[in-house]
Amino acid sequence: MSECYPYGVAVGRGGDGPPRVVVRVGDQALDVGPVATEMSHPLAAELSAPTLDPLLAAGPDAWRDVRRSVLDWIADEPPLTWLDDLDLLLPFTVADYVDFYTSENHAVNVAGILRPGRPGLQPNWRHQPIGYHGRAGTVVVSGTPVVRPSGHVAGPGDDDRPSYQPTAALDVEVEVGYVVGTGSTLGKPVPVSGFEDHVFGLLLLNDWSARDIQMWETVPLGPFLGKSFQTSVSPWVVPLDALAAARVPVPAAGSDLSPYLVETEPWGLDLDLELSINGEVVSRPPYRTMHFSPAQMMAHLTANGATLRTGDLFASGTVSGPDRDQVGSLLERWRNQRYLADGDEVVITATAPATDGSRLDLGSVSGRVVTQR
Amino acid sequence: MSECYPYGVAVGRGGDGPPRVVVRVGDQALDVGPVATEMSHPLAAELSAPTLDPLLAAGPDAWRDVRRSVLDWIADEPPLTWLDDLDLLLPFTVADYVDFYTSENHAVNVAGILRPGRPGLQPNWRHQPIGYHGRAGTVVVSGTPVVRPSGHVAGPGDDDRPSYQPTAALDVEVEVGYVVGTGSTLGKPVPVSGFEDHVFGLLLLNDWSARDIQMWETVPLGPFLGKSFQTSVSPWVVPLDALAAARVPVPAAGSDLSPYLVETEPWGLDLDLELSINGEVVSRPPYRTMHFSPAQMMAHLTANGATLRTGDLFASGTVSGPDRDQVGSLLERWRNQRYLADGDEVVITATAPATDGSRLDLGSVSGRVVTQR
Repeated sequence: MSECYPYGVAVGRGGDGPPRVVVRVGDQALDVGPVATEMSHPLAAELSAPTLDPLLAAGPDAWRDVRRSVLDWIADEPPLTWLDDLDLLLPFTVADYVDFYTSENHAVNVAGILRPGRPGLQPNWRHQPIGYHGRAGTVVVSGTPVVRPSGHVAGPGDDDRPSYQPTAALDVEVEVGYVVGTGSTLGKPVPVSGFEDHVFGLLLLNDWSARDIQMWETVPLGPFLGKSFQTSVSPWVVPLDALAAARVPVPAAGSDLSPYLVETEPWGLDLDLELSINGEVVSRPPYRTMHFSPAQMMAHLTANGATLRTGDLFASGTVSGPDRDQVGSLLERWRNQRYLADGDEVVITATAPATDGSRLDLGSVSGRVVTQR
Repeated sequence: MSECYPYGVAVGRGGDGPPRVVVRVGDQALDVGPVATEMSHPLAAELSAPTLDPLLAAGPDAWRDVRRSVLDWIADEPPLTWLDDLDLLLPFTVADYVDFYTSENHAVNVAGILRPGRPGLQPNWRHQPIGYHGRAGTVVVSGTPVVRPSGHVAGPGDDDRPSYQPTAALDVEVEVGYVVGTGSTLGKPVPVSGFEDHVFGLLLLNDWSARDIQMWETVPLGPFLGKSFQTSVSPWVVPLDALAAARVPVPAAGSDLSPYLVETEPWGLDLDLELSINGEVVSRPPYRTMHFSPAQMMAHLTANGATLRTGDLFASGTVSGPDRDQVGSLLERWRNQRYLADGDEVVITATAPATDGSRLDLGSVSGRVVTQR
């Protein structure tokens, strides 16, 4: 494994001391605020903040400047803190959260399950990244338990009356999320080519889903309470600069798209994801199969003039490959499907190619299912 | 007209001076921060903030305490500022924005237009308030121009290829929005009876919609770019306490609902809304016809354990009465429908019954359509 030196926010184990910006170095972390202050770095104030928000807002020149400095500081072998001695927090304030649906294998699988006998993909699917807004207020950091949600599900009678009960179909969605640094102006779309000017980095994301609640509510306004109870993210934000060796073209890069969606350079990513439940690997979704890139998602999100804000989070949607052991949700393993039981521990990890031919560790996002009290 | 003394945030005309909390008194405003400080009021710090956020977070006892004091201060005839000398700002930080769909007349009208020949309401509609998450980052204060959005709309060919173009179907949605003060705990639903503990007040809301963009994108994940370009709100937040004489039962208050949605006291509201375009009143939607109350919306929103946060905004959905001159969107005037043209000025106003038999002025939300540059 090589290092990608991602950014996070930590306190001492058990909540000791104020939150501080840290950079991961293997199984240790560097407190960057004190070093930046000692070095009179121009971003010392941003790096001494209790969240990544000021660094995110500082923009792409600052991000590159900080990254160069951080790599220098680490090369000098400064004192580090063991990760075991830290609690990692949600590293930034989530502004808006948007979830896309850009895996063709996932979309085809879901269509086959939910709408058997009707054509697979909707007419719009190949022409734009389909997405919707989720609940920013329930995005939580890895390790937060997920309380089994209750909600209306289809009832036992034939009178359309639902039952309000704990979900019997608690699922995961293996995703990659993108963190916006620089905001944009209302009424001005951001082009695909502006991706590196606006997006700071990525993280891993589990969009927990209650399929029975989702099924009952979803027509006509889309997913709502079947998703909004919790979304978990990894504590480490990997800067885009660390992913140079992972970049690949996406299937939808071509000229059959509307001009506002045509890729100007490849922002598909050759990430290997892994989903484990109770320590057993159940799936290995390949991110390189995703139909649209995050640069296309960003351009689509703003194509109507909607603003980006510092802290906006947008996610890929469930990552599923073509094979049965590559799907990113339990819904897609529908023949012998077992949804999550109370006590189940779910872990998503990922790696990416490094420039030296080894792999980068992109971190993990985990959560244990607990009973509603 | 009687006074409801709503809360807002203002600067001097043209952006002069720091933002400050104000209470509307007719066509003037009281700066409450300096008065509260002079009186050593326990909430003086909250009332001297540049937004309503600290007051919202202070909770229901504080809200009642402040309201009693404000009424006393106004009775003493303090110096006031003419509204003409102020610019009103978005008065609080919008956390999450949820839009419901709780007008039966609107839902039936839309179903008849969008799905002719298929049954009107979905099976879920009468059993719960249907809703979805919108974009918090594009909620703007009244007076902000709305830039005509572009987006994918159904194309002219028969090959499913969309056109990216400025919307030709820019619409309004006349709504009432509710502002959350007190947050809640992850995993713990908030009961209907907790409405006054968590919700501070209401405002008027125009959920601008691009119908052609919405139509193309909406299946299967719901409204997205057809809505997310802008949502306008009135600058004045009316505290719930001012609405005592407006409260009425809702049609869906009854025992045929799941227990978590049964009203414990009436939170339907007898508000008269009015939609004007270029100075001509085109519709008078009666809010009392709404099927679900805001207390039921709040309970539904958290029924899966999702948290409320200070600044959450949830809206009623388009308010439409049974008559053609009572609809809250242009979509519903579909025979001689004219969508908004560049330069059109849209104004929504509302009144409510006062305890003395007169009407309360709930303010207005306006916006002019401008061309995309």
